[in-house]
Amino acid sequence: MTAGKSSIAGEWQAAGTSYFHSVDPRTRKAGETRFYSATAQEIDAAVRAAADAFAATRLFPASTLADFLDTSAEEIEAAADSLVVTADAETALGSVRLTGELARTTGQLRAFSALLREGSHVAAVIDTALPQRTPLPRPDVRRMLLPLGPVAVFSASNFPFAFSTAGGDSAAALAAGCPVVVKGHPGHPATSERFAHAINAAVSACGFPPGFFSLLQGDGHDVGRRLVEHPLLEAVGFTGSLQGGRALHDLAAQRPRPIPVFAEMGSINPVVITAAALAERGAEIVQGLAASATLGAGQFCTNPGLVLLPESEEARTFIADYRDAMLGIEAGILLNAAVESGLTRSVGRSASLEGVRSHTRENANRTDGFCYPHTVLETDAATFLENPDLQEEHFGPVTLFVACSGDEELDRVLRSLAGQLTGSIHCGSEEGESLQPLLDTLRERVGRLIWNGYPTGVEVTAAMQHGGPWPATNAAGTTSVGTNAIRRFLRPVAWQDVPDELLPEALRNGNPLGILRQVNSDFTREPIA
Amino acid sequence: MTAGKSSIAGEWQAAGTSYFHSVDPRTRKAGETRFYSATAQEIDAAVRAAADAFAATRLFPASTLADFLDTSAEEIEAAADSLVVTADAETALGSVRLTGELARTTGQLRAFSALLREGSHVAAVIDTALPQRTPLPRPDVRRMLLPLGPVAVFSASNFPFAFSTAGGDSAAALAAGCPVVVKGHPGHPATSERFAHAINAAVSACGFPPGFFSLLQGDGHDVGRRLVEHPLLEAVGFTGSLQGGRALHDLAAQRPRPIPVFAEMGSINPVVITAAALAERGAEIVQGLAASATLGAGQFCTNPGLVLLPESEEARTFIADYRDAMLGIEAGILLNAAVESGLTRSVGRSASLEGVRSHTRENANRTDGFCYPHTVLETDAATFLENPDLQEEHFGPVTLFVACSGDEELDRVLRSLAGQLTGSIHCGSEEGESLQPLLDTLRERVGRLIWNGYPTGVEVTAAMQHGGPWPATNAAGTTSVGTNAIRRFLRPVAWQDVPDELLPEALRNGNPLGILRQVNSDFTREPIA
Repeated sequence: MTAGKSSIAGEWQAAGTSYFHSVDPRTRKAGETRFYSATAQEIDAAVRAAADAFAATRLFPASTLADFLDTSAEEIEAAADSLVVTADAETALGSVRLTGELARTTGQLRAFSALLREGSHVAAVIDTALPQRTPLPRPDVRRMLLPLGPVAVFSASNFPFAFSTAGGDSAAALAAGCPVVVKGHPGHPATSERFAHAINAAVSACGFPPGFFSLLQGDGHDVGRRLVEHPLLEAVGFTGSLQGGRALHDLAAQRPRPIPVFAEMGSINPVVITAAALAERGAEIVQGLAASATLGAGQFCTNPGLVLLPESEEARTFIADYRDAMLGIEAGILLNAAVESGLTRSVGRSASLEGVRSHTRENANRTDGFCYPHTVLETDAATFLENPDLQEEHFGPVTLFVACSGDEELDRVLRSLAGQLTGSIHCGSEEGESLQPLLDTLRERVGRLIWNGYPTGVEVTAAMQHGGPWPATNAAGTTSVGTNAIRRFLRPVAWQDVPDELLPEALRNGNPLGILRQVNSDFTREPIA
Repeated sequence: MTAGKSSIAGEWQAAGTSYFHSVDPRTRKAGETRFYSATAQEIDAAVRAAADAFAATRLFPASTLADFLDTSAEEIEAAADSLVVTADAETALGSVRLTGELARTTGQLRAFSALLREGSHVAAVIDTALPQRTPLPRPDVRRMLLPLGPVAVFSASNFPFAFSTAGGDSAAALAAGCPVVVKGHPGHPATSERFAHAINAAVSACGFPPGFFSLLQGDGHDVGRRLVEHPLLEAVGFTGSLQGGRALHDLAAQRPRPIPVFAEMGSINPVVITAAALAERGAEIVQGLAASATLGAGQFCTNPGLVLLPESEEARTFIADYRDAMLGIEAGILLNAAVESGLTRSVGRSASLEGVRSHTRENANRTDGFCYPHTVLETDAATFLENPDLQEEHFGPVTLFVACSGDEELDRVLRSLAGQLTGSIHCGSEEGESLQPLLDTLRERVGRLIWNGYPTGVEVTAAMQHGGPWPATNAAGTTSVGTNAIRRFLRPVAWQDVPDELLPEALRNGNPLGILRQVNSDFTREPIA
């Protein structure tokens, strides 16, 4: 039933000899299916087919692309039961979480479909001619966004649906009209294969060129490297580790013709808890924070890995209670051996630093599968400031507390932070406005500020910003969640003095699409007289 | 009167020992003033002062930044006569052109000021909370754009005003609230110094922190390299050669913490002339094209360097007439020795290729200053397709004609083109719609499509796109001309569940700035109830 092949423009191929297996995280046992890494020829064929497909799809009206996204969502829903079972076997994320993630995935596709049908995402700007202007007449200039071309999407391990084969990056690129070549994550190849069947079915049902979507299976770095170096590729979307994202960033920047990489590389997501918050809601925050830190076994880019609080008796009680709460929650199954060994390495390094204290033990609440005990570390601000390594992500259920002697030290710690996806503040009911300076400092370091809440749970809305300064991402000007993500795969083009009938519909005088446009500075849906 | 120093946060400094002179392009003679290259300490001080200034300016309301831009424009205008005289002595561009360029420069500053006062450039998006949503309530999420931080701007040789010290890149960054450190072009250091006086006066008059603007003088690569590698720098704007842009792109990408570079690196700006256009308007196009190709001695990024036309008797006549027109125009003075030697080298290489014919002679219409004769080259499509080197820019008054045997060969040539800032089509009065496929092919290669017009003359409007795929730029998703250029120096941040009084004004319920916002999908200026 599972072929173990790559899908190259709708054809299942496996001409290579190198293969890998998917592993059941609950038993650490490899399955029987051989998944063959795509060969250089298969990679080349996928990107060439994508470039061929683009010759057609770049001219598709937004409504045609929207139909495709809707059909994809339907095909995914039709395969929902099988997808959840398959992904659970490969990721151990559980059917409740995966059912929710599937809904998010189809929701993302439909959010982009709605965006396309509304149509204003092309950001049409029109400045009409001023033939009487002196010394020279002003020409008619009209600008809108167009798709970039073939996009490579690297699947994430921790979101086998929502940031994998037909996840956020793919949805944004496909919505833009860009053909997508997915590099499937080796942690869930059977899930990727099932998703590819669904997307291929949508390609077929909508009469799209088959090169609009391909899936390349592969472990190791060769498949990804060849893909990013392909001369016909135009952009890359990536969600994963800093090491992986940096490698792709460097590869793409060093090409003879550099292309953009949009890499989301994780964070430690600082959470500030004020003295008043500890006093008013300490117990409530213990529960909320522990739930956020252990969600999905802590394997979220937005996992709250760093908590800053005052040096106080209340804080010591808070940390002790938090430790108890963490140990009271059963440790989850981790995605794969690499996450487990990564935690052993990264936590081991942090805990061994002078001035860092572990409140938990390495052998606490283990299970048979890939697992790492819920871990609570604590240090003081001086140690944190002296050891930039403490800012490296512990990808999993690990929380590092940093006690700060006062506002000034807290400020120093916040300013020392590298870029983050999120920053959260928990405060007391009376101290809102006094925290403006703190909020202003934190906003320079993050993509999203959260007030009296937790960073996990990223809404897929137009207002969402999932990004942030390096090393959270390498493209702080863009988002990887929410409908604004489509912007990463579009570029502006201006038409000067081009006759109305030769303009794209979005730019024509009559505004046949009825979209919002900026015409001679005013935002309007009116036609141009 | 000219100090020959760098302006570091308002202080004129020259602690170094390495210096250079500005050269009069009309006489090839160096002036007496020693311009000292900024030292490593001066570069560091400028970026540190910029980072310090940013701590204040990042919170400035848009109206305060707009006041600064208006004041800068006034200070520049107050120094206009001196600026034009100084720049003419350093660039030989002439007072008519420079007076026009000065107006463009102050116009750019005021266009950004108007954008700031209108306020919608922050792209506010608001999705209000849905507390009743199941299974989980939806939080309130609000998103807007914030400035990146200190920006380095590299001046262009060919626009001593409009793309130099207070030119387009600086205006866009300053408008965003980003402090700017300018690396002055060594071709016009006295002009840069005078501009810095004007901007410093505006900084002072507006009570801005002095680190908001610095000018670093320097020849060679050291000053630029040190600037781009400075850990506190956040972004780079550059206008210049492919070689220079690529070097900065690589430097910035290889930093421990990569930062974005926005490099505009020139083009050959293909012009397609159809048989019908030759027949109907051949003589008119000869004059228009020759005027465009020799404007500013051909030293424009948008200079029409490549002309594609049919193989025909009419085309041969056109080329002969064009040669006569070019030779009938007096050769202009070039900016500097590097432009002159660059032309000798690049034209020499192209003309020596088998299949390339020169219609002009190297010793035609010379002058005493830096100069290169107006040059007309011709080749066939097969030669052009076989020699990618023919796509390299001849920066100056050089036109390469490529005769194509028919639509199919023209299509092949267009598809072979690297990215361009512009692409132009001249057609007959009856053939508009039949050229849709040509227009569709060309749009994939360019940032701006021009119909029956010439690429020189870039309007500074909201609809302008001055950019394009590599190697025209390294950031095809952005523009370097027009008010949308501000986007390069902004990044989105989202606020989740933050109380109204702690939100930036642009995101508050009452919409006190009265800006256009996207609220729960609708575009509106209304407050939120």
